[in-house]
Amino acid sequence: MFAPVYLDHNATTAADPAVVEAMLPYLSGQFGNASSGHEYGRAARRAIDQARSQVAEAVGAHASEVVFTSGGSEANNLFIKGAAACLKPGVVAVSAIEHPCVIKPAEQLGKRGWTVRQLTVDGDGRVDENNFAAVMALKPKIVSVMLANNETGVVQDIECLAERARSVGAYFHTDAVQAVGKIGVDFRRLNAAGVCALSLSAHKIGGPKGAAALVLDKRVELEPLIAGGGHERGLRSGTENVAAIVGFGVACELAAQRRIAVARRLLTLRVRLERGLLGLGATLFSQAVERLPNTVYFAFPELDGDTLVGKLDRDGYATASGAACSSANPESSHVLRAMGVTPDVARGAVRASLGGSNTQEQIDGFLSTLQATVSRLQRLTAMAV
Amino acid sequence: MFAPVYLDHNATTAADPAVVEAMLPYLSGQFGNASSGHEYGRAARRAIDQARSQVAEAVGAHASEVVFTSGGSEANNLFIKGAAACLKPGVVAVSAIEHPCVIKPAEQLGKRGWTVRQLTVDGDGRVDENNFAAVMALKPKIVSVMLANNETGVVQDIECLAERARSVGAYFHTDAVQAVGKIGVDFRRLNAAGVCALSLSAHKIGGPKGAAALVLDKRVELEPLIAGGGHERGLRSGTENVAAIVGFGVACELAAQRRIAVARRLLTLRVRLERGLLGLGATLFSQAVERLPNTVYFAFPELDGDTLVGKLDRDGYATASGAACSSANPESSHVLRAMGVTPDVARGAVRASLGGSNTQEQIDGFLSTLQATVSRLQRLTAMAV
Ligand SMILES: Cc1ncc(COP(=O)(O)O)c(C=O)c1O
Ligand SMILES: Cc1ncc(COP(=O)(O)O)c(C=O)c1O
Repeated sequence: MFAPVYLDHNATTAADPAVVEAMLPYLSGQFGNASSGHEYGRAARRAIDQARSQVAEAVGAHASEVVFTSGGSEANNLFIKGAAACLKPGVVAVSAIEHPCVIKPAEQLGKRGWTVRQLTVDGDGRVDENNFAAVMALKPKIVSVMLANNETGVVQDIECLAERARSVGAYFHTDAVQAVGKIGVDFRRLNAAGVCALSLSAHKIGGPKGAAALVLDKRVELEPLIAGGGHERGLRSGTENVAAIVGFGVACELAAQRRIAVARRLLTLRVRLERGLLGLGATLFSQAVERLPNTVYFAFPELDGDTLVGKLDRDGYATASGAACSSANPESSHVLRAMGVTPDVARGAVRASLGGSNTQEQIDGFLSTLQATVSRLQRLTAMAV
Repeated sequence: MFAPVYLDHNATTAADPAVVEAMLPYLSGQFGNASSGHEYGRAARRAIDQARSQVAEAVGAHASEVVFTSGGSEANNLFIKGAAACLKPGVVAVSAIEHPCVIKPAEQLGKRGWTVRQLTVDGDGRVDENNFAAVMALKPKIVSVMLANNETGVVQDIECLAERARSVGAYFHTDAVQAVGKIGVDFRRLNAAGVCALSLSAHKIGGPKGAAALVLDKRVELEPLIAGGGHERGLRSGTENVAAIVGFGVACELAAQRRIAVARRLLTLRVRLERGLLGLGATLFSQAVERLPNTVYFAFPELDGDTLVGKLDRDGYATASGAACSSANPESSHVLRAMGVTPDVARGAVRASLGGSNTQEQIDGFLSTLQATVSRLQRLTAMAV
């Protein structure tokens, strides 16, 4: 089988072999419904309990604070809409660079009497201080700012933002889907600073698709998005996806064990990649600020990002253009737009996001392929002009 | 390993080996995000497309009418709350014997200006004609009645009910989670009668936990429960659980192929089981009406259902008491209450739900275990009095 080099780990990751192995029993012999009052059911319940502890441990939370969901999108929707449903309408503030699964639920609140405020970012993609202060003066009830951005990899100073949000009485949520496993995430510490809730997703950290969690301060009341049998303390009903939850638990444990070593390796590769890209004449986005150790977001003058991604794909390299999680959307990246990047530069955006399996040889191979491809495409573009 | 005889197929089923095999590649090598613009992504997209056709085919729908969700509970919540969000508040009517994941979302609408009406049932658990007519006179905007009940197995005449609901302008939804794979379910035909939407869930039909679908008439507008990247025609965002969706597709195909033969076998076993139960002095619920070929719901005088299920579990038989999907709930079955069963009889309720792997020997073994257990427990109860 032709296996392209995978440089798209922010879109999704392969499940670790240990994760798949842990899941397998729960896909066949141990298939019980965790709510059932017999041995099949109890075995499923025990497996979920263990996974809940593993997930909690990896992000410095207590097991009872973990609410399992089917994905990061569900976790984000659950917090934003679930918290809003228990409050009188007011102001909800989300950063302009949030994933659509934070921005869209906030917009839905806009149809239910809420006022939606987008928190602006600076040219590097960091939340703008002055704007943040101005929005806090409106006393928002719900604030959501992501820990790390999926496109640029930019890391926000969440503790500082959360403290200020708390001081005006807001519930503060952070989407940590891209941060977990790449940088240290400690809910106890974030919670002490004012973060009420945090989302993470298994498939971004070597776990399976189909499991994720909202880690939630129990003092915050939420209305369930999926109401029914009362699973997950009444916050998320539905027969638990035992196998995926088990895989999520193992992935969290492995991610926590490996994080520091992996991050160090990836940072070395990232620096090598960035140096190469600059040598080829690329623009690097958010180069000046703290970013995830695995994410490089770049553009070549005059080249369309989608075209380049397609060409690289045929040459055996899997990358992403613009916002990868919803590539169905042909618009240019809302993240780059929020950063004030001009449309002609933004349309060139390509993201390479590294993972544990990537090697120096792959990075070097990628750079030499890019060199050939870019000069050929630029020649074609020049001819077309 | 000790493997009790599994008689709880309405709670969940083991994934068919062919289902697990089909899923495996998507848990490891083929791990792409279906939205990605490279070969890993396209492989995932193709797999989802195929599964969508398989699911559609199994329930007589068009692939474009299938909206994948994470579970039956999500599908039911999506329809009830999603349709309501696009309408002005009015009357929402759901039968009194619906699964909690229909009843609870309807109750949530009650907090948003809607009037909730429960459709009553008769002593056999069939929707009451007169009450249905009276509620239709209120011109409800949303009506939901399940095709087959998870506890009693009772099958409703959905075409007849849907026609009457449509004649007053209502959207009619049916929860077919327990019906699919056990009796014929044809969305085209149901849709012609006025059914707008139908829910089904993979783990009830030999598929994995984590995949399900709302089959939806495209003329019905829904607000997404999980908003974000715009997956599933904007109706359900979030990275698709490719492996589970693939398994769901295969399970649907197998269920459709095998349904008639399996149903015939199970009906023979069910009749044998029922005859034995009556011989032991049990009461059978809903005995007189059309039921799923696999479901037997019974009670022994003076015996507590939970106690009996616990005893059977230790003797190697996995069954369910009251409502199995939310056994956390200690209340007696709301289904039996709605049927007018007295609390002292209802607390004895035990469900045996058969599946393809069950044999005549297992049924006979179950009956002789029951005989011993019941007479011992009844003796103990008599002594305690
Ligand atoms: C920052 C961020 N938040 C949320 C999500 C959504 O997570 P999921 O795909 O698990 O629903 C993603 C990726 O898709 C993401 O990158
Ligand atoms: C009739 C019925 N509807 C809905 C559900 C919920 O489906 P799921 O567990 O897949 O969320 C169940 C079982 O749990 C059921 O029996």
